[in-house]
Amino acid sequence: MNFELTDDQQAFADTARQFAREVLAPNAAKWDREHHFPVEAIQQAGELGFCGLYTPEEAGGLGLSRLDSSIIFEQLAMGCTTTTAMLTIHNMATWMIATWGQDAVKQMWCETLVTGQKLASYCLTEPGAGSDAASLKTSARKEGDHYVLNGSKVFISGAGSTDVLVVMARTGEDGAKGVSAFAVPADADGISYGKPEEKMGWNAQPTRMITFEDVKLDPQWLLGNEGEGFKLAMKGLDGGRINIATCSLGTAQQALNTARDYMQEREQFGKPIAAFQALQFKLADMGTELVAARQMVRLAAWKLDNDDADKTTYCAMAKRFATDVGFTVCNEALQLHGGYGYIKEYPLERHVRDVRVHQILEGTNEIMRVIIGRRLIADEREVL
Amino acid sequence: MNFELTDDQQAFADTARQFAREVLAPNAAKWDREHHFPVEAIQQAGELGFCGLYTPEEAGGLGLSRLDSSIIFEQLAMGCTTTTAMLTIHNMATWMIATWGQDAVKQMWCETLVTGQKLASYCLTEPGAGSDAASLKTSARKEGDHYVLNGSKVFISGAGSTDVLVVMARTGEDGAKGVSAFAVPADADGISYGKPEEKMGWNAQPTRMITFEDVKLDPQWLLGNEGEGFKLAMKGLDGGRINIATCSLGTAQQALNTARDYMQEREQFGKPIAAFQALQFKLADMGTELVAARQMVRLAAWKLDNDDADKTTYCAMAKRFATDVGFTVCNEALQLHGGYGYIKEYPLERHVRDVRVHQILEGTNEIMRVIIGRRLIADEREVL
Amino acid sequence: MNFELTDDQQAFADTARQFAREVLAPNAAKWDREHHFPVEAIQQAGELGFCGLYTPEEAGGLGLSRLDSSIIFEQLAMGCTTTTAMLTIHNMATWMIATWGQDAVKQMWCETLVTGQKLASYCLTEPGAGSDAASLKTSARKEGDHYVLNGSKVFISGAGSTDVLVVMARTGEDGAKGVSAFAVPADADGISYGKPEEKMGWNAQPTRMITFEDVKLDPQWLLGNEGEGFKLAMKGLDGGRINIATCSLGTAQQALNTARDYMQEREQFGKPIAAFQALQFKLADMGTELVAARQMVRLAAWKLDNDDADKTTYCAMAKRFATDVGFTVCNEALQLHGGYGYIKEYPLERHVRDVRVHQILEGTNEIMRVIIGRRLIADEREVL
Amino acid sequence: MNFELTDDQQAFADTARQFAREVLAPNAAKWDREHHFPVEAIQQAGELGFCGLYTPEEAGGLGLSRLDSSIIFEQLAMGCTTTTAMLTIHNMATWMIATWGQDAVKQMWCETLVTGQKLASYCLTEPGAGSDAASLKTSARKEGDHYVLNGSKVFISGAGSTDVLVVMARTGEDGAKGVSAFAVPADADGISYGKPEEKMGWNAQPTRMITFEDVKLDPQWLLGNEGEGFKLAMKGLDGGRINIATCSLGTAQQALNTARDYMQEREQFGKPIAAFQALQFKLADMGTELVAARQMVRLAAWKLDNDDADKTTYCAMAKRFATDVGFTVCNEALQLHGGYGYIKEYPLERHVRDVRVHQILEGTNEIMRVIIGRRLIADEREVL
Repeated sequence: MNFELTDDQQAFADTARQFAREVLAPNAAKWDREHHFPVEAIQQAGELGFCGLYTPEEAGGLGLSRLDSSIIFEQLAMGCTTTTAMLTIHNMATWMIATWGQDAVKQMWCETLVTGQKLASYCLTEPGAGSDAASLKTSARKEGDHYVLNGSKVFISGAGSTDVLVVMARTGEDGAKGVSAFAVPADADGISYGKPEEKMGWNAQPTRMITFEDVKLDPQWLLGNEGEGFKLAMKGLDGGRINIATCSLGTAQQALNTARDYMQEREQFGKPIAAFQALQFKLADMGTELVAARQMVRLAAWKLDNDDADKTTYCAMAKRFATDVGFTVCNEALQLHGGYGYIKEYPLERHVRDVRVHQILEGTNEIMRVIIGRRLIADEREVL
Repeated sequence: MNFELTDDQQAFADTARQFAREVLAPNAAKWDREHHFPVEAIQQAGELGFCGLYTPEEAGGLGLSRLDSSIIFEQLAMGCTTTTAMLTIHNMATWMIATWGQDAVKQMWCETLVTGQKLASYCLTEPGAGSDAASLKTSARKEGDHYVLNGSKVFISGAGSTDVLVVMARTGEDGAKGVSAFAVPADADGISYGKPEEKMGWNAQPTRMITFEDVKLDPQWLLGNEGEGFKLAMKGLDGGRINIATCSLGTAQQALNTARDYMQEREQFGKPIAAFQALQFKLADMGTELVAARQMVRLAAWKLDNDDADKTTYCAMAKRFATDVGFTVCNEALQLHGGYGYIKEYPLERHVRDVRVHQILEGTNEIMRVIIGRRLIADEREVL
Repeated sequence: MNFELTDDQQAFADTARQFAREVLAPNAAKWDREHHFPVEAIQQAGELGFCGLYTPEEAGGLGLSRLDSSIIFEQLAMGCTTTTAMLTIHNMATWMIATWGQDAVKQMWCETLVTGQKLASYCLTEPGAGSDAASLKTSARKEGDHYVLNGSKVFISGAGSTDVLVVMARTGEDGAKGVSAFAVPADADGISYGKPEEKMGWNAQPTRMITFEDVKLDPQWLLGNEGEGFKLAMKGLDGGRINIATCSLGTAQQALNTARDYMQEREQFGKPIAAFQALQFKLADMGTELVAARQMVRLAAWKLDNDDADKTTYCAMAKRFATDVGFTVCNEALQLHGGYGYIKEYPLERHVRDVRVHQILEGTNEIMRVIIGRRLIADEREVL
Repeated sequence: MNFELTDDQQAFADTARQFAREVLAPNAAKWDREHHFPVEAIQQAGELGFCGLYTPEEAGGLGLSRLDSSIIFEQLAMGCTTTTAMLTIHNMATWMIATWGQDAVKQMWCETLVTGQKLASYCLTEPGAGSDAASLKTSARKEGDHYVLNGSKVFISGAGSTDVLVVMARTGEDGAKGVSAFAVPADADGISYGKPEEKMGWNAQPTRMITFEDVKLDPQWLLGNEGEGFKLAMKGLDGGRINIATCSLGTAQQALNTARDYMQEREQFGKPIAAFQALQFKLADMGTELVAARQMVRLAAWKLDNDDADKTTYCAMAKRFATDVGFTVCNEALQLHGGYGYIKEYPLERHVRDVRVHQILEGTNEIMRVIIGRRLIADEREVL
């Protein structure tokens, strides 16, 4: 057991921190205000390898572990939560294509995906299938030598601005086993995009509904085998949950740092508010919870890297815990700023708005509890 | 002891609820989106008496109790949190003018304030004097037969769109006893307004900084006596805290109702999500906390109406408790909506953004704890 | 709406407080240590009317309201949680006998029950029927002109030391509608008592299992009609929940007072620990939550007194909220005492042990959430 | 970064688990009930090396790391919280003697301490010096060639049944720098022991006050140098905090396992209560928090092993977090057992009583927050 970062991890973290400080942080408020999707910044991140962190090297990625990736994403999230979240989704989708894509598809996409020249979206959720993802209704009916895709997906990050869509669609029976995954060109005939959703936060990335109307799918776009799509989607999500939890960590750390600095500067009743014991205690609890959250995320990433039998449970625990802590820390940091926390001149309210969705997406924290609870009560196995 | 509403209270509540449903609720999302200050709606509210609820009848108000007023404001807040909050601030300032204003000032302002034709702002907070309000630096120096006002106020609700400013300024020594209160015409020479603050929520009312530069104040604008200003400001805030707590109650009730309805309609895993026990438990806790919060607010209002020796403590308790519960209930209601809670098509994220500031203003919830704690440890008195 | 105690309520409260201070408080630690059931103190309480507070006057009780009774019980609980809890159970059982007993039974028991010369137990829970009380298996089979009682009850307060048992038993079909209630003499042939349960707290009252083996029941012992037993038991519990919540209130108030006094006396780092802001904040939150809990209990009692359509929901809310708050306040008060909170020389650890069971009995707080949640999601009714 | 136990760690853990199951668990309830100090079991533990886990090998200990030790203690605590806690205190005191003792003292004590034939107590707290330990008043006045010890210590674990006392006493100026540490034979002339404190839990170890009246101390008993005593005491406590946090972990894991098993067996409403979603969610949260707590403890132990600059802060974080989680998990496990959780036939109420003190001793969790908060607001250093 060893909690030390390797030199490589530290070097990656330093690079990421510098990128976050120089490219992301100075623009994050503006991107939020203007609802700007910073494709250019994502591509710059791609130049540093951040678009294919855990994509295998043979597909052009850095081939890093999930733990390495989490260490990097955390630093990025300190600069801009939303852009980093989009980067993580792109990494997940890219990894899925690189791992389960057929050769032709890998050749078509991977090179440009790992550099960020092309971007990918992950399309699972539907209007009627959120927490109950396996009930999805989008169908990919076999017709002659191809599939025909019909249906719609909602809350798709990047939709309308990305180039390839990893789409889970029904090719067979009801339930999880009838689902297949496809890598679909985003501009295929029959695909239309809704208007951007107006959201509480995550304004630096577009979220749209996608409608598929008789979209013709070449069988080579199938990821893995027919019927494996739900399984692949869930494998993607194990890592996706670590990623989104990581985005909460980085944002919370940034909020904590900001609150600490503010407490040292802001004076009331003749002294810096850092001198007030009740506020110190609050800061202490924020710091403690955040350290715990970071450990949870890294443990889960390590379990995933090591293909632990309980990796899905640990990923669910990390996602639940770190996104709850992330929200609480940001929210307390806002409170410590008083009225200044509530206005956009300061970053706190943006942090709160941005991390709020992490408790919902990639499986709500309620679904995380379902996953964890089911594991804990499984009668044939030792309690974790 | 009797927990029943009187027929009059019920009738007022019904009128308010109807107004909230017909005038406020249909427009609240739009006002938020467009950052529109609905002066016209406030004036309509004024026609129903809602601009001078607890202003004495001799000054044109309804002369209701704080408890009556809370019952009414709660219903209004179900329609639009921000507009109701502005109404409560206007009510507070109007009541202060009607109670401590000199005859000339009362005659000048009260008639139009109680109808909402003219609006009032409450100006206490300064850039360097937030929680430590008594350290305010805005000065009203006596010069010949008038005062000269210099300094600045921040986070002033309605500023730039209101007609009269209740300003706390220093006329004497350092500390609370050197402060006086004035009712100042908002368009007096030397007053300038900053640009509207960009805020997390409360977008349906402008919040601006106000700068006073050699503003000449006629002595008749003094409220109460010289040196009484801080005391009057705090008296205003006792009621102001009940009001803002009430705005949290109404919003939270609305969020709870919305979540309940959603849970009945939204189906996942083949049944309405209302059928899931863990979600029922969450709803149960939201409901329980909300009922408790309402009782706290009404108890405090009643203590204030009866000039209880501990009224300030009870008002602080109610403000702390109800605004915390209000935020939690709205935030949980958002979570119960999953992804739909995060988008502006649904009202939940707005409710969360709007009630968030209630934990900060009219004295942060930390200052409430200071007030309550000080009372509880006072060694000469029985514990509450 | 009026939050003031009447002169009568205040007078009763004063009497109860005096009794608590003089008779209960000086002995509570000893009774806990020695596992002594203070029958003598209960009888003294009976002389003051405290054994039949809400028993109708025609049956010898004081005929007070549940609200009156809660005000009184709260004061008593400040002296001894466990004894007061036993008193409340006795009051509940006595009220059931007085309300639904046949004349002969009322004549046989009520006079001595309301004075505390005789004591009553409430027998609902069974080894296999706790939260699912309606599945109880104890049977009262009709045989000729009498019933024959068989089965067992667990966790019966006072069992072995009381004189009459209010027993819920099955006379008919499965489920709630097949249950009847009986007032059974505690020394009837065929009744045997287990050894006293060793408990975490509540040591000043014996808790035993009761076994019924062919106990012959005269039909005159039936309370209400056959098949009404579950309904009567639940009616008893509405009040029982207010009572037990009240016991948490009184104990928590006592713990709060004790902690306040300790904070004033105990010095560390050169000043009373009351001077430390973080501890003041903790005390402030304890006080605030306790005031809220008290309001919840009184509101529920008032709803019960007024036969409100939602009385059961309000009683469940009050029980859930006040027993959770009661535990938290006592537990925080212990913490504020540091090491002294953990030793029996101080009352804090006893308070924690005693109130802990209130979250479990009279329906666990989980069952309270079931009741509240069910009400809130009932689609045909307005949300509370 | 690597979260895997080494083979050695796993082997030690297995041995400890077996010992816990065979020697501790079957007797823990009895020892609690009878207030029995199981010296024999501690000596058996000593035979396995558990009395000198991190004592250097040259002094006869196993020379393990704090991380190794935590892994072992956690398993032991699953068998008996109190006995394991005593073991950890003995380990801490033994390590202090072995590390800072003079040769003569090491030779006198270490051999028998590491085997558990002799036992050691740690004596810091005084009636007037709890959280403010540096204000201790026990004095060791130099008189000729020896010291004379006067004063008293409270809440001393094992006192009256141990053989050597590590005593912090004032040899110089006021404050931390005037304190020295001594290893004092427990039977020295002038030492007297109070009667055992009656406590909420931790009944399997005696806790007594110790009074020193002109106890003559040979200078060879001094640990480290004069004036270093407070520093040594705090160094001991860094590890002591990890240890006590570990005792909470093991107990909570045991409580969680017990609750899981109970939920599978206990049926209500026609199915195992494990089938109820709200209870599953509760279990899921308990499990998640516990995993987080374990990570915190191991991280802190690793920081201590690696002499990290922030080791004290991490130890404080781990102690605060894990003892709070430990209490909550045990308390929830009690609740999941309903009435059975409250009686001594089941272990839950004992777990709750035992871990409760962990939030208080080795520095209260409030003092932990002081330590953490002070570090976080230190303006010259990066936030953790």
